[in-house]
Amino acid sequence: MAHFINAKADAVTDAIDGTIAASGGILTRLDGYPHIKVVMRADWDRGRVALVSGGGSGHEPAHAGFVGRGMLTAAVCGDIFASPSVDAVLAGILAVTGDAGCLLIVKNYTGDRLNFGLAAERARAFGRKVAMVIVDDDVALPHLAQARGVAGTLLVHKIAGALAEEGVDLNAIEAEANRVIAATRSIGMSLDTCTIPGSPKEDRIPPGKAELGLGIHGEAGVEQVAYSDAATAMAAVTAKLADGMGDSDHVALLNNLGGLSDLEMAVLSRELMRSDLAGRLSMLVGPAALMTSLDMRGFSVTVMALGDGDADRLATGTGTSAWPGAKPMATADVLPLPDGLTPIKPLASDHAPTRAFLIRCCEILLASEADLNALDAKSGDGDTGSTLAHAARALMGAMDTLPLSDHTQLFRALGQELSQTMGGSSGVLLAIFFAAAGDAASSGMTTRDALRAGLARMQQIGGAEIGDRTMVDALAPALDALDDGLTRAAAAARAGADGTAAMARANAGRAAYVNAAQLEGHVDPGAEAVARLFERMVDV
Amino acid sequence: MAHFINAKADAVTDAIDGTIAASGGILTRLDGYPHIKVVMRADWDRGRVALVSGGGSGHEPAHAGFVGRGMLTAAVCGDIFASPSVDAVLAGILAVTGDAGCLLIVKNYTGDRLNFGLAAERARAFGRKVAMVIVDDDVALPHLAQARGVAGTLLVHKIAGALAEEGVDLNAIEAEANRVIAATRSIGMSLDTCTIPGSPKEDRIPPGKAELGLGIHGEAGVEQVAYSDAATAMAAVTAKLADGMGDSDHVALLNNLGGLSDLEMAVLSRELMRSDLAGRLSMLVGPAALMTSLDMRGFSVTVMALGDGDADRLATGTGTSAWPGAKPMATADVLPLPDGLTPIKPLASDHAPTRAFLIRCCEILLASEADLNALDAKSGDGDTGSTLAHAARALMGAMDTLPLSDHTQLFRALGQELSQTMGGSSGVLLAIFFAAAGDAASSGMTTRDALRAGLARMQQIGGAEIGDRTMVDALAPALDALDDGLTRAAAAARAGADGTAAMARANAGRAAYVNAAQLEGHVDPGAEAVARLFERMVDV
Repeated sequence: MAHFINAKADAVTDAIDGTIAASGGILTRLDGYPHIKVVMRADWDRGRVALVSGGGSGHEPAHAGFVGRGMLTAAVCGDIFASPSVDAVLAGILAVTGDAGCLLIVKNYTGDRLNFGLAAERARAFGRKVAMVIVDDDVALPHLAQARGVAGTLLVHKIAGALAEEGVDLNAIEAEANRVIAATRSIGMSLDTCTIPGSPKEDRIPPGKAELGLGIHGEAGVEQVAYSDAATAMAAVTAKLADGMGDSDHVALLNNLGGLSDLEMAVLSRELMRSDLAGRLSMLVGPAALMTSLDMRGFSVTVMALGDGDADRLATGTGTSAWPGAKPMATADVLPLPDGLTPIKPLASDHAPTRAFLIRCCEILLASEADLNALDAKSGDGDTGSTLAHAARALMGAMDTLPLSDHTQLFRALGQELSQTMGGSSGVLLAIFFAAAGDAASSGMTTRDALRAGLARMQQIGGAEIGDRTMVDALAPALDALDDGLTRAAAAARAGADGTAAMARANAGRAAYVNAAQLEGHVDPGAEAVARLFERMVDV
Repeated sequence: MAHFINAKADAVTDAIDGTIAASGGILTRLDGYPHIKVVMRADWDRGRVALVSGGGSGHEPAHAGFVGRGMLTAAVCGDIFASPSVDAVLAGILAVTGDAGCLLIVKNYTGDRLNFGLAAERARAFGRKVAMVIVDDDVALPHLAQARGVAGTLLVHKIAGALAEEGVDLNAIEAEANRVIAATRSIGMSLDTCTIPGSPKEDRIPPGKAELGLGIHGEAGVEQVAYSDAATAMAAVTAKLADGMGDSDHVALLNNLGGLSDLEMAVLSRELMRSDLAGRLSMLVGPAALMTSLDMRGFSVTVMALGDGDADRLATGTGTSAWPGAKPMATADVLPLPDGLTPIKPLASDHAPTRAFLIRCCEILLASEADLNALDAKSGDGDTGSTLAHAARALMGAMDTLPLSDHTQLFRALGQELSQTMGGSSGVLLAIFFAAAGDAASSGMTTRDALRAGLARMQQIGGAEIGDRTMVDALAPALDALDDGLTRAAAAARAGADGTAAMARANAGRAAYVNAAQLEGHVDPGAEAVARLFERMVDV
């Protein structure tokens, strides 16, 4: 499986450079590539407690995306799924730690604990004040004394970050971070394993199964469970979290492990908010990709019992690129549909000349059914004649319900009728034509000008210009010539329709998808219908 | 391929409900499911120009995620990749349009144009002021008169949204929207097609190929090109955009089509910022999933020539969940590595008793190599003896360089030496032990208390408690008994080490991964080493 990377060995440094380049200048890094990969705030003055986190890469946007005002001061990045070296962590600590000291926020993996731990000792030997907290929010393996650190780490970043921004001292931040860690629990579920760029994919999860309680490095889940749908998947996840979750207010964090579509994450949001936990959730972070496992097609849910002040600390803004904010759980009422969706039927009225004119038009279209179908077969599916004949029959059947004596209302009624009976793009376009003409007529335009306004609107919406091989090629010149009488208009329509036979290229309508050679020599059926309508009117 | 959805028919309404539920109360919808799917601002008072967009679903977060203060007023959502009906659009327009009127922002697809167009006519018949702009930013098909509307639509949403928020009137917003559309161009590239939930996946793009100029509904790209790496992929995309792009300042929008990992998007960010376009880019939106094609493993780049005021309008904050902000292109200098990464070698000094003591310790470890390896073979890879012997040999070789007369410095130097020569987790843990002991000694503690402080730190970092079947089980009781003399300490170490043979469960260290039955009856090799060190000291 190909990935959008360059050389595999450069994937992490390239990604870090991209994150920095796209940060708007808030991020920079230490000059230690490739061994030392430390991303840090460009505006850092060491005036407050520094927060340093990190670990293996492949969890983007964690952790570099959370570096910025109000969250991390620096992120120390290892290679993909590999802990950064002691030297790299030490470089990060020494680069950002001033008199206020530094808190290391470490996910509970042996490599990270050891390397961050030893780096902390080295920094202390230089007289730096360094504390370290270990995040172990994963509840997948309840009997393992050393639970893994997963997406709950972000809540520690955020709350500790808000405290550091306020100027709180190191001991107090460390204590608060440990309180948050104790209150935070996470579990994940995935439909597929992740793909490490340049490595073969492990095909571990069979169709019909999902893994529950998996880690963020492609480690197998605690159990493979039957997968049926999003609702039961979320229920399995929330059941693991519900155990031992108190009744107090909690924040939930809904994390995309990397490969789920936003559509799926939205469906999962719905299920979380309908789950057994819902009554205890008062804030939400996400859904968003926060702590990913490359492209893993899974999600995780984190819950944390809110302590005093946590809600405010979660809600404060940050200068980071990846923190999505924390929102209150709040629902607005669903709103009733507006009036007006059922069009008001105009009052039927009669007007003998108009009735005769419309019937004549319908008869012309009915008589042309076979010819127009034959023409359409050259460029389309051969049904233009039938579509128009169907509309004509429906119109004749509806004649007694139309406001024949009021042309403004009649235009609108014709539009409504055609959009309901004709279907397809042409039905909508003719409906727009008549509706816009009715609109224009109601503002006092002459019938000819109203029809032109209808044509203009139909062209704007349909996108057809003169020369695009559509009915516009006949209708536009006919309306233009109408001032000089119906005979001139009919001649103009005929000339326009015949001209379409020489148009090799169709830019609008269905014929746009047909080979030019197939079109040549054949008149467009829509234009032909318009020409026939005008010509037969002259004959009357 | 399974997806996190429930019934396929409910995927879109479930996703909309999830988006609303996760919006913190800023979104609501009209009560028209399943036919009418309109998401709108919950706080809308019709006081300003309303902005309505939409189209088929499957492009999440577009468009519902961009509803909120400063962007859209409502999003009308169709089924996946299908235009919403005229009634749905009309419902949206009627629900949000007050006296200031409404602008429809429509992507250039026939279905959307027609249905939004006819809905606009219907709304006008109700006396509503409605304008419509059509976004056609795709440059994949330069000869097609009707270019598709893709991710550039977001720039129209944002700039028109900022203007509407300012209270600008409908005509002016329409004109500005059309100016933005004319200045905006996009193109996409993908390594794979998207998967429509519940439908079979089209396997169109062969390995080694990418599609350039593809649409957002799974339509095939204009060409299949050879794919080698992110740099050449981005170069192919930017080459299409460079044509006809003026020299003025542009904003770029880097869009994840849905399935790329954040790591890949970061790499692509780097390539965009190093591309031929870079000199003309002064602002960036993303990288982010903005206008997706479900889970498509591709990206698109949009560029827009900035007009007067556009930069400010792009930069204003919004109340939406999905707009990632627009950042200036700014780079901070890479920072030099801090001093202190190369540890300062302490001044060598001699102290005969200390030298004799250390040599004796090393000799004990060297003599125990085979025994400790044999013990380790019961629970690990059988190299504990060799690892310790290797470290002992190295330490004897370094004896003349150590600060033997200064115990504080000596502890630290031992830590440094062990972390360099011993390797592995035990090397790091012993380095932490000695470094922390040195730290404690430097603050005036007795040697015994300093060693205890070292042990505490090693336990914090390594996570091993008494009873976890590690060297701690011998070391901790020995240090506790040291006040009563070396003999008592040695006895305590021996009792502790022997006790590990009865510990069925290992919670820390490598043996945590080994079956309990395999461990039973065997002393932990680390604990045995500690016991031997104390015992042989007594013998001296």
